[in-house]
Amino acid sequence: MGRPESLRGAVPLAHFYLRERVREGDRVLDATCGNGQDTLFLAELVGEGGEVWALDVQPRAIAATAELLERHGLSGRVRLVETGHERLGELVCGELAAAVFNLGYLPGGDAALVTVAEKSVAALEQAAGLLKPGGILTVALYTGHEGGPEEAGAVESWAAGLSPREFNVWTCRQLNRPPVAPYLVFVEKVR
Amino acid sequence: MGRPESLRGAVPLAHFYLRERVREGDRVLDATCGNGQDTLFLAELVGEGGEVWALDVQPRAIAATAELLERHGLSGRVRLVETGHERLGELVCGELAAAVFNLGYLPGGDAALVTVAEKSVAALEQAAGLLKPGGILTVALYTGHEGGPEEAGAVESWAAGLSPREFNVWTCRQLNRPPVAPYLVFVEKVR
Repeated sequence: MGRPESLRGAVPLAHFYLRERVREGDRVLDATCGNGQDTLFLAELVGEGGEVWALDVQPRAIAATAELLERHGLSGRVRLVETGHERLGELVCGELAAAVFNLGYLPGGDAALVTVAEKSVAALEQAAGLLKPGGILTVALYTGHEGGPEEAGAVESWAAGLSPREFNVWTCRQLNRPPVAPYLVFVEKVR
Repeated sequence: MGRPESLRGAVPLAHFYLRERVREGDRVLDATCGNGQDTLFLAELVGEGGEVWALDVQPRAIAATAELLERHGLSGRVRLVETGHERLGELVCGELAAAVFNLGYLPGGDAALVTVAEKSVAALEQAAGLLKPGGILTVALYTGHEGGPEEAGAVESWAAGLSPREFNVWTCRQLNRPPVAPYLVFVEKVR
């Protein structure tokens, strides 16, 4: 995988956790594939025998992700589905080693098309239920757009309510960046 | 190293970071060796060619750590020094891959003997200056004892003031545990 990324920002920190936990042959989920960067990262981590589920409600995101995977010759490892993440529980079969959420809007896309608190929390609840022991769920949260702080608050409330016997739940914020900097909520299913 | 620990608590989360970053042959620092558990963990991580500096101001902590290392046959990798961590800059020679701080009081020891904000911040400043690019510093913070919240606040203020060009600084708290639960501040020297 080469030299690890510097831990500047919520996405590199999420990748740090994922790199430690995801192994070849694992099944993982990118609940919000967006431009496909996380899907590609996961497809590399799971190797040839692994399986990535990648969802997005926007056709543009599905097309961008498909093209990126094609370019890297990794389409065969990914099940790409155009659907809202709140339907993941109906689609994904089997236990997950990891689930990745990147909330907010599609970078470079229509900023009016944002994930919303209610559906995101429903999706997170479904994904947490699919984690295998030791499996992790990462949520990158953005508060700089309209509705962002409300969504982040709803995610934190949901996460805070998870049973400490079943889940270890962390929130990680960058202390030397502006308060509006993206941050990470990170859930580990207890072994 | 066997199966990774479950990420319940600030110390297991610190170990998670350290396991990813510390390599055989590295030089690392345990600034507050206490009962020696972190020193032992670091001595295993750095391997035969590595070097651990371990400091503590309490003779009781030095004795406990020495005994623990002896029992595991790892004394040869560790320079154990009875001194306050605020003097580490005078002692430690060379760049560090990691520096570990566990603030508060010695578990099982005299709860009146606690680390204090001013000395801890001085020690952190010295340790941060010794980190090599990509190196990390972890600080486990405890707020349940007298002076604990003030010390934690001073550490956060210090960390928040670090240049974002030189350091990535994170604070990680457990969302589904009581607010008084220990938490982690984590500093990465930018590459």
